Amino acid sequence: MVFCSGDPLCGNEVTCMEKQQIGNNFFIPMPVVIVGTQVNGKDNFMAVGWCARVNGNPPMIACGIANNHHTPQGMSTSKTFSVNIPSSDLLEKTDYCGIVSGENTDKSKVFRVFYGSLKTAPMIEECPITLECRLVQTVALPTHGLYIGEIVGAYADGSVITDGKPDFPMIDPLFLTMPDNRYWTLGKYAGDAWSAGKKLIEQSQNNTQKGQK
Amino acid sequence: MVFCSGDPLCGNEVTCMEKQQIGNNFFIPMPVVIVGTQVNGKDNFMAVGWCARVNGNPPMIACGIANNHHTPQGMSTSKTFSVNIPSSDLLEKTDYCGIVSGENTDKSKVFRVFYGSLKTAPMIEECPITLECRLVQTVALPTHGLYIGEIVGAYADGSVITDGKPDFPMIDPLFLTMPDNRYWTLGKYAGDAWSAGKKLIEQSQNNTQKGQK
Repeated sequence: MVFCSGDPLCGNEVTCMEKQQIGNNFFIPMPVVIVGTQVNGKDNFMAVGWCARVNGNPPMIACGIANNHHTPQGMSTSKTFSVNIPSSDLLEKTDYCGIVSGENTDKSKVFRVFYGSLKTAPMIEECPITLECRLVQTVALPTHGLYIGEIVGAYADGSVITDGKPDFPMIDPLFLTMPDNRYWTLGKYAGDAWSAGKKLIEQSQNNTQKGQK
Repeated sequence: MVFCSGDPLCGNEVTCMEKQQIGNNFFIPMPVVIVGTQVNGKDNFMAVGWCARVNGNPPMIACGIANNHHTPQGMSTSKTFSVNIPSSDLLEKTDYCGIVSGENTDKSKVFRVFYGSLKTAPMIEECPITLECRLVQTVALPTHGLYIGEIVGAYADGSVITDGKPDFPMIDPLFLTMPDNRYWTLGKYAGDAWSAGKKLIEQSQNNTQKGQK
């Protein structure tokens, strides 16, 4: 244990644990998605744990996928892909799509498929939210490729829309942690973004005013 | 309601909800991190909701950050940044770092700071996990920049390491959903990755054997 100086915002004295170095290969907990592609004319699906929104307008999403996978072949050829968000009840099928390669297994019948405006980005009917994307850029990294797509269509089951907005507890997404290799559900509502921190703005303004008196 | 054909894996007839188009600007639920930089010699922190691992070896992480933010200035100058994972008890301070800009507010005293091998990537003592990164590539996107960093150091509080591995319920990370703008905690353990799907491999093999009889 080391003892630290007081918390600058509250002024109370606190203690903190000593830091220890862990392996650099740390994986932040990530939402699990299923990427859909057509490879050699056949629908293929792959579970992907490294996926994030990356641009605001137009909306873009990026997926980090290892170079040796079957999926990049479909993305590169058709210049399209889908990003499907499975609910926790699809955990087994999602995991199946992560451990079986489309190179030697036909995954085209694992889900029911529908198409949007892009005719080569197969989307999964059973997933409550699905996005169809046009590949706009590929960034080559040492062991992975980063596939950046513009979202050109987004589809939802009516059951996961409340007051016109996606209802995330209803979507019931999965998260992946590594290296413990576990799936998790979404937890409890914890606070409002762009709002909860306003208390500290007021606090900081009050402290400034006190200091000026 | 539309009636779909049977589930190809189980053979039972099921129903599914009709799909509706939602706005393309869909945000997948993302882990919340705080990116630390030095801007003009001062420590600065920004809450970031678009961050993912993107390369396996060497380990790399990417953050999508809007072009008008203060943080990119620090990243571009020092070629370093930190990625800090706050626990839910840091929700207010995290949100504060997301709504107040370093351009007009000094955020250097919001947290206690420590440094690793990179001397310009301030890490947050109060965060149970912190990563120090060397900027390796910047991808310019229309409204955002994608900042790709190699993780060159990872630090943890001893209290969040169980059996030598990061213990995610102890880390107690936050997730952000948009456009409802809510923070959420990590939920329940739901299953084992690279394992839960093995049942379907066996099932599929059994079906193939039956078909051959």
